[in-house]
Amino acid sequence: MSEPLETDAIIGVLGGGQLGRMLSVAASRLGLRTHIFDPATTPPAASVADMLTTAPYEDQVALKAFAKSVSVITYEFENIPVTAFDCLGQYAPIRPGREALRISQDRLIEKTFLNELGLKTASYAGVETLKDLELALIKIGKPSILKTRRLGYDGKGQVPISAKSNHKEILEKFAGQKAILEGFVQFSREISVIGARSPSGNIACFDPGENVHRNGILHTATVPARISKSQRTDAVLIIAKIMNALEYIGVMCVELFVTPSGLIVNEIAPRVHNSGHWTQNGCVVDQFEQHIRAIVGWPMGDGSRHNNVITENLIGSDIDQVGVLALDKNVALHIYGKRDVQPGRKMGHFNRVSPKR
Amino acid sequence: MSEPLETDAIIGVLGGGQLGRMLSVAASRLGLRTHIFDPATTPPAASVADMLTTAPYEDQVALKAFAKSVSVITYEFENIPVTAFDCLGQYAPIRPGREALRISQDRLIEKTFLNELGLKTASYAGVETLKDLELALIKIGKPSILKTRRLGYDGKGQVPISAKSNHKEILEKFAGQKAILEGFVQFSREISVIGARSPSGNIACFDPGENVHRNGILHTATVPARISKSQRTDAVLIIAKIMNALEYIGVMCVELFVTPSGLIVNEIAPRVHNSGHWTQNGCVVDQFEQHIRAIVGWPMGDGSRHNNVITENLIGSDIDQVGVLALDKNVALHIYGKRDVQPGRKMGHFNRVSPKR
Repeated sequence: MSEPLETDAIIGVLGGGQLGRMLSVAASRLGLRTHIFDPATTPPAASVADMLTTAPYEDQVALKAFAKSVSVITYEFENIPVTAFDCLGQYAPIRPGREALRISQDRLIEKTFLNELGLKTASYAGVETLKDLELALIKIGKPSILKTRRLGYDGKGQVPISAKSNHKEILEKFAGQKAILEGFVQFSREISVIGARSPSGNIACFDPGENVHRNGILHTATVPARISKSQRTDAVLIIAKIMNALEYIGVMCVELFVTPSGLIVNEIAPRVHNSGHWTQNGCVVDQFEQHIRAIVGWPMGDGSRHNNVITENLIGSDIDQVGVLALDKNVALHIYGKRDVQPGRKMGHFNRVSPKR
Repeated sequence: MSEPLETDAIIGVLGGGQLGRMLSVAASRLGLRTHIFDPATTPPAASVADMLTTAPYEDQVALKAFAKSVSVITYEFENIPVTAFDCLGQYAPIRPGREALRISQDRLIEKTFLNELGLKTASYAGVETLKDLELALIKIGKPSILKTRRLGYDGKGQVPISAKSNHKEILEKFAGQKAILEGFVQFSREISVIGARSPSGNIACFDPGENVHRNGILHTATVPARISKSQRTDAVLIIAKIMNALEYIGVMCVELFVTPSGLIVNEIAPRVHNSGHWTQNGCVVDQFEQHIRAIVGWPMGDGSRHNNVITENLIGSDIDQVGVLALDKNVALHIYGKRDVQPGRKMGHFNRVSPKR
């Protein structure tokens, strides 16, 4: 019950964006230090991290030095080149592991994995050629949506296909990238469940939150979600099944569609997630600290929620609202310190807190 | 109502201990950066600060460069040499200002200031010679307590005087340092009130907490304190009076004795304070963020409390409890990342959270 804890750990984080930044802050609460690896010279995490390596993910010398300086390596986004992992993995454990990354990096592999676990997803088919697309459309029907298998996020790399679409033109946009055709899912709402699994297989989940997107980017996440108790249980069972199958270590997010025929898995993210930022103002241990605790082998928080919270993202010029938001006594601000405001860029978020009912 | 906010501020912090560390983290939530000035090479705040200057407080060249790199200067402890402020003040505003520092650096000046404001304190008298001490003892009586006027904290530089004490021997311990004799106060409990004042004179206070000391060091702070509504109001009126008199900017702590004849001011600290750490897990805006907001001119939080909290310090080898504490689902850990464990050294604290009743 009172194993000695790793208290001198330096945590290597691949990616120094806002997620790396908030992971660094969480690590500091536990007395631990972070070393950020990022191709950019002044990524947001650098301001609150103990160390920063600025190098491309292809720089094997820098990767090796980084890996040798840390106790454990984690990542804030899933599109890190596999070659980087091959190098890093020789010198320090990578958590979550390679398998979670391999699966979540490719939508086709991910959907196949989920279906093999007995979980429901949208109907899907791999697409490389125009003939593949025609066959897939016969199977899946229209409307449907063509997505790149890799590297898509926040609505990027996705094209909807309707009755009027020109298939050839659409496929040309993909310029030879492997794609996946997905059927539309009729859902009443989308929820996220954030869970964590420890090296010894313990699992803890936060309450599912309800997500609203705008222009393909998360706009708000609200807890509690308007779901039934049994849907809540289903969400927890689904993420537990996925984490156990992957022998996962760390925090994971699973996005789910709520449909009349049950929960359908949209996608998984092998990392802390925007839809879990509410935990910063709703839980004793937030998703960032939970992830750090899991990957260094500390006991995890239990995910209990003590407030109702709505997270809202500040995208691009939304950041101009900060002056007004700062006046609101129930608003907790989380600004990422990015100096360039760009349309679609996540500049910060805020958590609107109200008493739990 | 929506003045443009200072969003590029770099906050200079004198002192890189745990308070500077938690100020840095709070600044990061607002997208702001910190520059720490500390004589030590790896102070706790360095791990989460944007910049670090390592130099003694007597290094005028380093002080000047530091001051020119920041928008505003604050401090985590009140025993900074006045000469350092003379230098710094030429290049950047110092908040809270010099006057608060001048008063809180010297117990005799502080008590005189408080009495002139019409506030109650222990009886007191300045002591430099044996004759001063004999006269003071006639006025104040025994038991009483002789303290250094400057540089005492956490029970250091204090000697109780009882009927049996040898006055000459006691005074020799002070080795020529100016001292103050203070009468003992019969109190039922000690409370702290943490308040903040903005540049425009707005004031917000947190709920008073109840303090328990061990060996002269804060052991626990509990909110809510067991005080009446009118005592709570009195505490707020007292700190507001002090802050207004000093045209104070930032967070201040006032320690008060609860006695049958009302609240008696023990001492003031012109900074964030150990007894306010509960705000990290009890408020939307904690004392650290409140201080940052005040000194850069942002709107302040209103101090509302949404949980009951007990803060307990981890002193010296108490840090070994972390393994057990991490298992407790209601415990939020705050570890300072100090590598040397020493008796009496503050290594961290934890906040035990329970629902507000």
